[in-house]
Amino acid sequence: MAGRLLPSEAELSVRYEASRVTIRRALEALRADGLVASRQGFGWFVAADPLRQSLGRLGTIESQLAELGVASERRILGFAFVAAPARVRSVLECSSVLEVRRINLADGAPFARVTVWCPESVGANLSRSEVEASPLYELIDEPLGGATQTIGAAAADAADAALLGIPVGSPVLVCERITRSVAGRPVLMSEHVFPGHLTEFSVELPSVEASMAPSGLRLVE
Amino acid sequence: MAGRLLPSEAELSVRYEASRVTIRRALEALRADGLVASRQGFGWFVAADPLRQSLGRLGTIESQLAELGVASERRILGFAFVAAPARVRSVLECSSVLEVRRINLADGAPFARVTVWCPESVGANLSRSEVEASPLYELIDEPLGGATQTIGAAAADAADAALLGIPVGSPVLVCERITRSVAGRPVLMSEHVFPGHLTEFSVELPSVEASMAPSGLRLVE
Repeated sequence: MAGRLLPSEAELSVRYEASRVTIRRALEALRADGLVASRQGFGWFVAADPLRQSLGRLGTIESQLAELGVASERRILGFAFVAAPARVRSVLECSSVLEVRRINLADGAPFARVTVWCPESVGANLSRSEVEASPLYELIDEPLGGATQTIGAAAADAADAALLGIPVGSPVLVCERITRSVAGRPVLMSEHVFPGHLTEFSVELPSVEASMAPSGLRLVE
Repeated sequence: MAGRLLPSEAELSVRYEASRVTIRRALEALRADGLVASRQGFGWFVAADPLRQSLGRLGTIESQLAELGVASERRILGFAFVAAPARVRSVLECSSVLEVRRINLADGAPFARVTVWCPESVGANLSRSEVEASPLYELIDEPLGGATQTIGAAAADAADAALLGIPVGSPVLVCERITRSVAGRPVLMSEHVFPGHLTEFSVELPSVEASMAPSGLRLVE
């Protein structure tokens, strides 16, 4: 499974009754063949090009993975109406929210830990099985107008490390997305944590001149 | 200085001849006042909101920092015409390149480690002092058409950790940017490494409907 972590060199040494030097030589040979890779903070893992998520238009992880030919699946960890955490309350401007916690899988392996919040009024008619089957984007009645997404790097805490099958402290991409209605009101807020060796984001930057030149109107594809 | 790392709790304990428990209590009191923060993989640092870099249009780190009221400065670490590394050669489609390595400072503290490559033909007339004073975007003759930027998370290696003043293995954002001429030819390639506690990226995602609806032309601000 691409991206899956191997046991540590010490563990492999015990398991195969071979010296650390021998284990290291075997891993280097596999690396030379492109079968495994190593990265600071992770150790060895099955070689995989990171999946590139394009930041172009509002969309779901699932639709991006499908375009890349990757089978995706979601596992609901929590579905509850709760008092909004402080940050969520200030963004969604409501005190009671539906909180959905889930793991997204890509080809069967954990790919993202996601928590989504929406105002209680928006989530009132949703069920746990509905949010497991479909993205919230497709389930809520509100037509969506766009989103602001932030992307940062952090070290995996113990809870995320266990959920994602990565070492505590290994690098993760942490994203926050605030999705608005067409009227501009925030209706969904979500936090996404991705293991750093599995994914990267890609964004197209038009030049200032190109995007300003036609002054007012420009052609879109 | 916002973002600067504090000595470890063990070092503070020795320096101030106080127990680890006392040091920890003092740090927690400073945290309650919003003066320091801690983060897995970093330890304690002077509290700072991360600088948010907007991924909207092609631009330089310096112009973004200036908009945020942050003084920026660049220190050139290397300026040399070299054989292109494999990845650079395949992107820029040339074997000899100008390689500029630098550190970007924000309010006097290391903010990014940057390496920029351009074809030898593009960089032939540039001097080390010119690239220290101005962004390459402003120095090269070629009008620029846009760029593709990727963003990933990694653990700082020893070299970057020393340059950026962060612990080895702490989370960093790693970006690659390929900048094209208006004709679409790649003319600059760069790699940017940012400490994870100092910055995050922000991108606006229009909805599929909003960006497709007017079919052909849309209003830009």
